[in-house]
Amino acid sequence: MSKGTVVLAYSGGLDTSCILVWLKEQGYDVIAYLANIGQQEDFEAARQKAEALGAKKVFIEDLREEFVTAFIWMSVQANAIYEDRYLLGTSIARPCIAQRQVQIAKQEGAQFVSHGATGKGNDQIRFELTYYAIYPTVQIIAPWRIPEFYNRFKGRKDLMEYAQKNGIPVPVTPKAPWSMDANLMHISYESGILENPKNHAPSDLFMMTKNPQDSPNTPDMLEIEFSKGVPVKVTHLTEGKSVDTALQIFTYLNEIGGRHGVGRIDIVENRFIGMKSRGIYETPGGTILFHAHLDIETFTMDREVRKIKQGLGVKLSELLYNGFWYSPECEFVRHCITKSQENVEGKVQLSVFKGQVYILGRESPKSLYNEELVSMDIQGNYDPCDASGFIKINAVRLKEYNRLQSQADSTN
Amino acid sequence: MSKGTVVLAYSGGLDTSCILVWLKEQGYDVIAYLANIGQQEDFEAARQKAEALGAKKVFIEDLREEFVTAFIWMSVQANAIYEDRYLLGTSIARPCIAQRQVQIAKQEGAQFVSHGATGKGNDQIRFELTYYAIYPTVQIIAPWRIPEFYNRFKGRKDLMEYAQKNGIPVPVTPKAPWSMDANLMHISYESGILENPKNHAPSDLFMMTKNPQDSPNTPDMLEIEFSKGVPVKVTHLTEGKSVDTALQIFTYLNEIGGRHGVGRIDIVENRFIGMKSRGIYETPGGTILFHAHLDIETFTMDREVRKIKQGLGVKLSELLYNGFWYSPECEFVRHCITKSQENVEGKVQLSVFKGQVYILGRESPKSLYNEELVSMDIQGNYDPCDASGFIKINAVRLKEYNRLQSQADSTN
Amino acid sequence: MSKGTVVLAYSGGLDTSCILVWLKEQGYDVIAYLANIGQQEDFEAARQKAEALGAKKVFIEDLREEFVTAFIWMSVQANAIYEDRYLLGTSIARPCIAQRQVQIAKQEGAQFVSHGATGKGNDQIRFELTYYAIYPTVQIIAPWRIPEFYNRFKGRKDLMEYAQKNGIPVPVTPKAPWSMDANLMHISYESGILENPKNHAPSDLFMMTKNPQDSPNTPDMLEIEFSKGVPVKVTHLTEGKSVDTALQIFTYLNEIGGRHGVGRIDIVENRFIGMKSRGIYETPGGTILFHAHLDIETFTMDREVRKIKQGLGVKLSELLYNGFWYSPECEFVRHCITKSQENVEGKVQLSVFKGQVYILGRESPKSLYNEELVSMDIQGNYDPCDASGFIKINAVRLKEYNRLQSQADSTN
Amino acid sequence: MSKGTVVLAYSGGLDTSCILVWLKEQGYDVIAYLANIGQQEDFEAARQKAEALGAKKVFIEDLREEFVTAFIWMSVQANAIYEDRYLLGTSIARPCIAQRQVQIAKQEGAQFVSHGATGKGNDQIRFELTYYAIYPTVQIIAPWRIPEFYNRFKGRKDLMEYAQKNGIPVPVTPKAPWSMDANLMHISYESGILENPKNHAPSDLFMMTKNPQDSPNTPDMLEIEFSKGVPVKVTHLTEGKSVDTALQIFTYLNEIGGRHGVGRIDIVENRFIGMKSRGIYETPGGTILFHAHLDIETFTMDREVRKIKQGLGVKLSELLYNGFWYSPECEFVRHCITKSQENVEGKVQLSVFKGQVYILGRESPKSLYNEELVSMDIQGNYDPCDASGFIKINAVRLKEYNRLQSQADSTN
Repeated sequence: MSKGTVVLAYSGGLDTSCILVWLKEQGYDVIAYLANIGQQEDFEAARQKAEALGAKKVFIEDLREEFVTAFIWMSVQANAIYEDRYLLGTSIARPCIAQRQVQIAKQEGAQFVSHGATGKGNDQIRFELTYYAIYPTVQIIAPWRIPEFYNRFKGRKDLMEYAQKNGIPVPVTPKAPWSMDANLMHISYESGILENPKNHAPSDLFMMTKNPQDSPNTPDMLEIEFSKGVPVKVTHLTEGKSVDTALQIFTYLNEIGGRHGVGRIDIVENRFIGMKSRGIYETPGGTILFHAHLDIETFTMDREVRKIKQGLGVKLSELLYNGFWYSPECEFVRHCITKSQENVEGKVQLSVFKGQVYILGRESPKSLYNEELVSMDIQGNYDPCDASGFIKINAVRLKEYNRLQSQADSTN
Repeated sequence: MSKGTVVLAYSGGLDTSCILVWLKEQGYDVIAYLANIGQQEDFEAARQKAEALGAKKVFIEDLREEFVTAFIWMSVQANAIYEDRYLLGTSIARPCIAQRQVQIAKQEGAQFVSHGATGKGNDQIRFELTYYAIYPTVQIIAPWRIPEFYNRFKGRKDLMEYAQKNGIPVPVTPKAPWSMDANLMHISYESGILENPKNHAPSDLFMMTKNPQDSPNTPDMLEIEFSKGVPVKVTHLTEGKSVDTALQIFTYLNEIGGRHGVGRIDIVENRFIGMKSRGIYETPGGTILFHAHLDIETFTMDREVRKIKQGLGVKLSELLYNGFWYSPECEFVRHCITKSQENVEGKVQLSVFKGQVYILGRESPKSLYNEELVSMDIQGNYDPCDASGFIKINAVRLKEYNRLQSQADSTN
Repeated sequence: MSKGTVVLAYSGGLDTSCILVWLKEQGYDVIAYLANIGQQEDFEAARQKAEALGAKKVFIEDLREEFVTAFIWMSVQANAIYEDRYLLGTSIARPCIAQRQVQIAKQEGAQFVSHGATGKGNDQIRFELTYYAIYPTVQIIAPWRIPEFYNRFKGRKDLMEYAQKNGIPVPVTPKAPWSMDANLMHISYESGILENPKNHAPSDLFMMTKNPQDSPNTPDMLEIEFSKGVPVKVTHLTEGKSVDTALQIFTYLNEIGGRHGVGRIDIVENRFIGMKSRGIYETPGGTILFHAHLDIETFTMDREVRKIKQGLGVKLSELLYNGFWYSPECEFVRHCITKSQENVEGKVQLSVFKGQVYILGRESPKSLYNEELVSMDIQGNYDPCDASGFIKINAVRLKEYNRLQSQADSTN
Repeated sequence: MSKGTVVLAYSGGLDTSCILVWLKEQGYDVIAYLANIGQQEDFEAARQKAEALGAKKVFIEDLREEFVTAFIWMSVQANAIYEDRYLLGTSIARPCIAQRQVQIAKQEGAQFVSHGATGKGNDQIRFELTYYAIYPTVQIIAPWRIPEFYNRFKGRKDLMEYAQKNGIPVPVTPKAPWSMDANLMHISYESGILENPKNHAPSDLFMMTKNPQDSPNTPDMLEIEFSKGVPVKVTHLTEGKSVDTALQIFTYLNEIGGRHGVGRIDIVENRFIGMKSRGIYETPGGTILFHAHLDIETFTMDREVRKIKQGLGVKLSELLYNGFWYSPECEFVRHCITKSQENVEGKVQLSVFKGQVYILGRESPKSLYNEELVSMDIQGNYDPCDASGFIKINAVRLKEYNRLQSQADSTN
């Protein structure tokens, strides 16, 4: 008799194929679920593989549109960046994948969900907090945290042997000496030879971006139009090409950014689990958007609103990194950030070249920029004498502090 | 009879030369003060010019060492960056210049100080808050805020005429259609044709950095060694050259960064005075250091300490931009940030190429990075089962929130 | 010929009566505007007085309802408190008064507005930022900052003489040796003998609250019901009386709080203008609501949402104190705080006695409190073993830090 | 053969007595450790009891002085308060107790430590994070999280039976229908009948403070003198008594506060573990100090320093509540807060009466308060005209925002 039904986040690779078979071995019915969030994958082949391995059902879900409009756009609006460098490409993919997985579990009456994330990483947390937040009574099977599983499969060799015994197709190409995770937004690389933080990344590591040394010798110039803080149109300024749907926009920016080697970083980051880890990321389109949005936002948003919003963005970045997309606080912060974007509207012109994004100019019907006010040549609606009072009043505290210190000095 | 003595922040240019003469005309004795903070200038010629114009005394002060070690290093430790983009090259130069100016005023018994900053900018504030903080009873003469002055000198033409009448040497080269401000850390460009935020910067604007399109086709690779959060040695990894004093280090990084076109930005920023303005900056060495320090800091600093320190860094950036270097709060924040840097020690390897800085690897005797702990291949001192408890406890709140919402849904 | 029309914030007292006459003397037409925000005042007598003094028109506006629902309720939702102690009773009254004043100015075609606030205080800023924010081209006449005015009226004696000469009724009762400002929310006392921060306040100072030494010897027990973070009903638990409109609720809480001497504070605060000043406040109803709202909020709001909201509340308090009610950032923060209050619903029971408010109990249909979960006697939906994992993962960083320090110790 | 040695945090009560015997039963040698942090306890009797139950050694440690000077004083300097209400009396006692416990464990060569805290509370975390931070390789035995233990002892009845069988003295007085925890700083009450958040606390619950209804009808007036943010002397203003050592000061403030019923709160708080719980606390001396310190701090500290310090205080409160006293971030924050207190010096006069603390006046040799500057009657070193410029410059942004909105309105 079946122990129940598990919806497994299935990737088509060796690990989750072994998990699929192992779960069946343990007495579960297995539903394989594979989300298309833009990774390179033969989804049809994956379906057949899962079926061949005994999956009761297979769900292949195209979440690309949702990933862009609900998750990536939010992170663009927030200028979300973890520890000043990481654009959160994996962090925001996990809740996107997991929410659909538990929807399927509920709809199929499955009491269990499972995933192939390891026990030391962030992804287990991002998956599972999403599961619990949406389907609180769900039971989670995380094989890499179950001693019977991880003691049996101590290395890749054990998985290969298990695969061979169980009719699981074994990968013919040797595994790269690192692991990677890809989606529409980025590819991340970690583990293996990258674990030594001193080692330089091999030059053939990157798959989404060209090496800037080999990239074109002339820039591509783009105009990105924003409305409410999200891009609504991208135009190539010399080629004249333009795109205006979310998925097209992001794909096109990936193409341009990738061609010029934009968005490569090599960092040591702090995992939620409390350890430092080294990660290498390439985020071509996301990096272009990060710079463009920062520019249009500062152009159109009041200084003090922006300061508060910046603090909320730092908070959001931390929440996303730690896996709290589906949480009351994240819901609240997302609401506030969305509110802040109401007037973030206009066009940014930029050039993409040899790994860099250069902002060239911007315009907006809703800017708080006032050329007449700021001009050095026009007095405008501004009396320079006011500045004297402003400065003197700002100095009141400083003079008092000086008084106190002089007093202290004369006493000593 | 003299109205008293003024110490004038003199640049040697047309504006402050006219101010020097005008102050004498108003009945003041004028002491000319010119700080060398790394700008390109013939200081001896400036001295002779000031004397010829009737300055009672002339002080030419070499503040470069102090500028690097007291001001730039602090901003490096803080990862100081205003509104996520501007590295504060002008902001931190002003208090450095002004503190020496009021020291001279005190020492020379001058009751007045004067400067040539305009009435719409940030610099007037940065100068004057420093003056008041250190010399609270000083009186400030800011000609560009005095109606008799600014109504008399409505444009450059008026200054030129005044110069000719008063024996002030008139510049022979036509003025660029923008204004600039240079020091060891950066050059800033604003005003004139740049006031239209849509206009692209002309390609011949930049003076400190090469256009990346014309920069070398091979990267320079450097190793920067930090101690207590400041660079103590820079080594060129292929050429073997190394430098190890503050001024040498910063100058060398400027050279390498400048050669590769590193550190160019074009932004609209929010002035303290409440208006938005467009500025273009090039900060070659500062940009390299910003990235390198960020890397070694994250490598060696505890996650939670860094979060708190990051907040203090945002605060510091705002204080520096607004001119509050000499203030009780800035003193306090600088103390705290310095404290946070005690273990920020180690070496970062990076490559500089075509406008970009790429971090390649890092090592430190004081890192909190633990290769064994994070390794995917070693269990190390870590039990994966603990993560289950960690996740479940983190989910307690999320489940409660789900309960509340489900309840609300079923009521509606 | 008239220089134009001024709308003067008129209080009926000596100062603004003199200002009214003085403005006419200067050649302005004067419209007197008197806001009823709950202060004790004979409004009809004030109208007649203003008319007698030559006001072209007189507006007496009852803003009490608006003051409570738009301003006080917002500060309750925010737990707004300046520098941990001051409940902002004057701060939020100013924009309420000033916004109606500039509405009248616009509607009456007046180019000028005027007020009687001094040049060292916060109120001038709160009035004028509101004026400029809503009516940017308005011109402000602030007599206490105009040398011809303040040099002429150096003390109360000069005002008295001027009054006598100009047919302004002179107060018969001697002025208290301090100044006060009253509205529905509070009375503030400052200046005069209170300027020495060491002096104790005289016991006969307070007008809104009884001295706790003379207050009843039995508590009053109330139940306050909240919806969306604002009180919607107050019931006296023993007397059975209940009120349920905004103005009634606040008035009733003032009555109960006043009777028991609740809400007296004596503080030194930091003015926006940069100086410290000593203020004494009594805020009976506001203090009761502060405690009750804090209780129901913590009961119904998620921990992490509350932390973020707490930060926004601190920000709001600062904005209100400094006069920025009508500003983009305040609008943004108020929106976010209002959003946070959606589930702040329920009843708080409390006792008011001898200057104190004691929370006794609370209940809510939307609480995140789960008695079963937290119970020591029921295991509930909670596995104690999870806590071990939670703690161990939280300790990962701490152990690493210990490792680093032990290393450092052994090196030294 | 022994499984090893455990140092048990022993209270002398039923629970930890049973744990002591149970640990022996499991094969451990047990060292009983009992910290005196000011709770009412017959320590000699507890020692004999532990010895009688078979403890290998018994340590009774008087930590009162250390608790006051290292832990309570820090929380006073920080104005530490969790969720705006709780003064953290238990939170800061735990690391104080636990650090000595692991010192003993190290010194006695014990590989294990144990405590009687439950699996749903905060205390387990506070104990264990301290253990791990100081003695990373220690093994923790938390019986209330071990199924064999908690399934065996499901309620008090099981413990009583076990006690009787094992010669453990059984308490003769019936247990109160709630649990409590006492130390020098406070007593906390929770669980049992208090778990229903609607239930009022019984009037006989409180042990450290008098019911304000029965407290004296005349206030006690005190003067508290601070140096570097900690109290150094307390004088009774009418009785003339004065005390000046840390332990005396705190004990005396407890006596005065207790007599007047000061410091009672009834709250629902958010545990680190993610659940809300109801707690009742009485903190007489701590509450007096909280108010007095707040007063002297605002009097002597610059406004902007205080704002930053306030943020650090909120962070510290959260860290203390969650058990992170011994952590890199707490160490950092404590350092910064201590730095901020350098000039927090002076005397506060206050009255304690019927549950309330009223600040009456204050003085300091290091105040930034300037009576002449703030006086309404003296112009002092202040030009009122400066305020006009200050306000106008602050309004620049607001006017721009109005312009943008008017534009939007006219478009719609």
